[in-house]
Amino acid sequence: MVGTGLTHWGVRKATLKELAQEAGKALFDDVDNLPKAEVDSLFVGTALAERLAFQSYVAPMVAEQLGIHPTRMLARTELACVSGQLAMKMAYMAIATGLSDIAAVVGVEKMNLPDMAETQASLAAILDREWEGVAGMTAPPYFAMVAQRHMYEYGTTREQLGLVSVKNHRFSATNPYAHFPKEVSLDQVLNSPMVSTPLRLLDSSGITDGAAAVMLAGEDRAREFTDTPVYIEGAGQAATGNLTVNLPSLTEWPHMRRAVRDALSMAGVTIQDMDLAEVHDCFSISEIIEYEELGLAEKGKGGQFIEEGQSEIGGQLPMNTRGGLLGCGHPLGATGVAQVVEVVQQFTGQVPQERYVGGTWALTHNLSGNANNHSVLVLHRDS
Amino acid sequence: MVGTGLTHWGVRKATLKELAQEAGKALFDDVDNLPKAEVDSLFVGTALAERLAFQSYVAPMVAEQLGIHPTRMLARTELACVSGQLAMKMAYMAIATGLSDIAAVVGVEKMNLPDMAETQASLAAILDREWEGVAGMTAPPYFAMVAQRHMYEYGTTREQLGLVSVKNHRFSATNPYAHFPKEVSLDQVLNSPMVSTPLRLLDSSGITDGAAAVMLAGEDRAREFTDTPVYIEGAGQAATGNLTVNLPSLTEWPHMRRAVRDALSMAGVTIQDMDLAEVHDCFSISEIIEYEELGLAEKGKGGQFIEEGQSEIGGQLPMNTRGGLLGCGHPLGATGVAQVVEVVQQFTGQVPQERYVGGTWALTHNLSGNANNHSVLVLHRDS
Repeated sequence: MVGTGLTHWGVRKATLKELAQEAGKALFDDVDNLPKAEVDSLFVGTALAERLAFQSYVAPMVAEQLGIHPTRMLARTELACVSGQLAMKMAYMAIATGLSDIAAVVGVEKMNLPDMAETQASLAAILDREWEGVAGMTAPPYFAMVAQRHMYEYGTTREQLGLVSVKNHRFSATNPYAHFPKEVSLDQVLNSPMVSTPLRLLDSSGITDGAAAVMLAGEDRAREFTDTPVYIEGAGQAATGNLTVNLPSLTEWPHMRRAVRDALSMAGVTIQDMDLAEVHDCFSISEIIEYEELGLAEKGKGGQFIEEGQSEIGGQLPMNTRGGLLGCGHPLGATGVAQVVEVVQQFTGQVPQERYVGGTWALTHNLSGNANNHSVLVLHRDS
Repeated sequence: MVGTGLTHWGVRKATLKELAQEAGKALFDDVDNLPKAEVDSLFVGTALAERLAFQSYVAPMVAEQLGIHPTRMLARTELACVSGQLAMKMAYMAIATGLSDIAAVVGVEKMNLPDMAETQASLAAILDREWEGVAGMTAPPYFAMVAQRHMYEYGTTREQLGLVSVKNHRFSATNPYAHFPKEVSLDQVLNSPMVSTPLRLLDSSGITDGAAAVMLAGEDRAREFTDTPVYIEGAGQAATGNLTVNLPSLTEWPHMRRAVRDALSMAGVTIQDMDLAEVHDCFSISEIIEYEELGLAEKGKGGQFIEEGQSEIGGQLPMNTRGGLLGCGHPLGATGVAQVVEVVQQFTGQVPQERYVGGTWALTHNLSGNANNHSVLVLHRDS
């Protein structure tokens, strides 16, 4: 990676097209010495553009908005909340195989519409519409079941869930791009409106408009554009089908373990080598289970991990320093790209002191659907 | 490629889910000695599932239907009519980078709905909805403009356009999977209902439901599953933005020339080495321009090329021997995969004698949108 770009995230008076353009402009402003004509490929991650922007064939529209003419590859990836990371991975593969030399990645989602019933209905079409969406199985009730089961099996407390939100909002409070740039207290989390028992509003990521962008170049050319390139050193993904009834467990995510293992092993490092991680806190319970599946906490001890401050700066592994999905909001296709932006900005000292970690190794993680699919990148900066 | 699968194409009393499953079953029936557990990745190409099947996150749904659990990669690609070839290309890149060993590709589209107004509206959201879709710019009027301009500039005749349809229907007449498995005469083409002047119904690919599937394996393992693997030796793509007003020309497709050149050059061959080609005949005029952009006919002489029978079996380069989009129909995400299926079946002698070419080198080509994006694969079988 040789450059990054972000839009402000929130309830934006902007279309999908305008959001993509805004992130693209920020990206080109950030990369030195790169004429647009040299960007030979574009990968766009977006989950629900056909419904929420009534626009298909989004990749060429983004090319138009960015003023680029991809002569090697052009693609849009869709995999719900993993759409953005998948675009990153496709760019990585294109460069690794020589099918691209310099590739732009844009993750974008427009979720706030005049009629939010369309947004709700579209989100219900992520899980199998006939079997589960029709019964109201969207993300909040699904992750509420996960939380209930985790509390039942392991004694995880309501307060422990809340602490994830407190931490991530503390980080987003210093992130001017975040949808929710202010701190919240545990009391505020515990008294926020109930969404789906036991998950409350402040346990839930927002319905957010936004975009994020990254420029990738091959190893041989990266230093033309920056003194501090960041490399993708590992990638892993594991998944199963989309039916909740066929999942092996609600509270164990073996596909995450597998994806983490493969990504770390490809990079030749361990989780202990990581300096920071961006993990998919779509709900507070998700981050708690992720502590466990990363191998940092024993199964069932994720609640204790946040209580001990182990995912804070200074703890065992600082996580979601940009504010996570809870603090930044979750424009589906943009999230996975924005996580990479945060890592690059951390590695290159572009974040405020309050949430600065720095370091040279990081992991980003996304899940999608009913946590049936997990995808992981391992990123590295030469020290 | 080590195996293929097809559904019957047509107006199917089947959902997207059922079509994907049918192609998947045919695929697993075709590949010897491959337990499902060894398929580590799945790539699904589909263009309009969010609207036409009201289903997002299609890749895990297809995994569920196929009964596979991808432990390495899972993705859906979308790029309108190039969605399927893009899934092929992503599988290729995954295997080439070592991120996958054995990958299934499924292209699928469900286009016939109880309310065809939804299909029409969704197709109008492929080009920029605000600027062009809203003005009625779907594929038929766009390619009608292209045809008018080609006739004006080069004297291409109405009869020459019709001959493309006659040829491709002659091929589809012996293809039991085709939507339109019967011959048509030039007279029938010229008297079929007008769609958008000068293009008539039989100049236009059908609104078709269908799916196609291919299994890919790394070079080191391919011979475990077949004695006659077919290799992807070249890939090229070139594109510009989505606005018609910004296209360099209606009748010259420089992005196709570029994609063809790159794919052939990567494979180290020339167009003269090809034994057959599957090209994107969404309308009869498209195939005529493709003769020119492949470098087989001079610019403007594509009409003469079909008149001389140069794209027939026995001609300079047999094209669209499965029947093309005109004869088979065009389920957007399935087409690019079905073209590869045809090549594999040609190379391995699985097609009827009437349309058998055989050979060891072939090219497949798809375009999308207003022909602003072209993508090409070069395929090879060891002789």
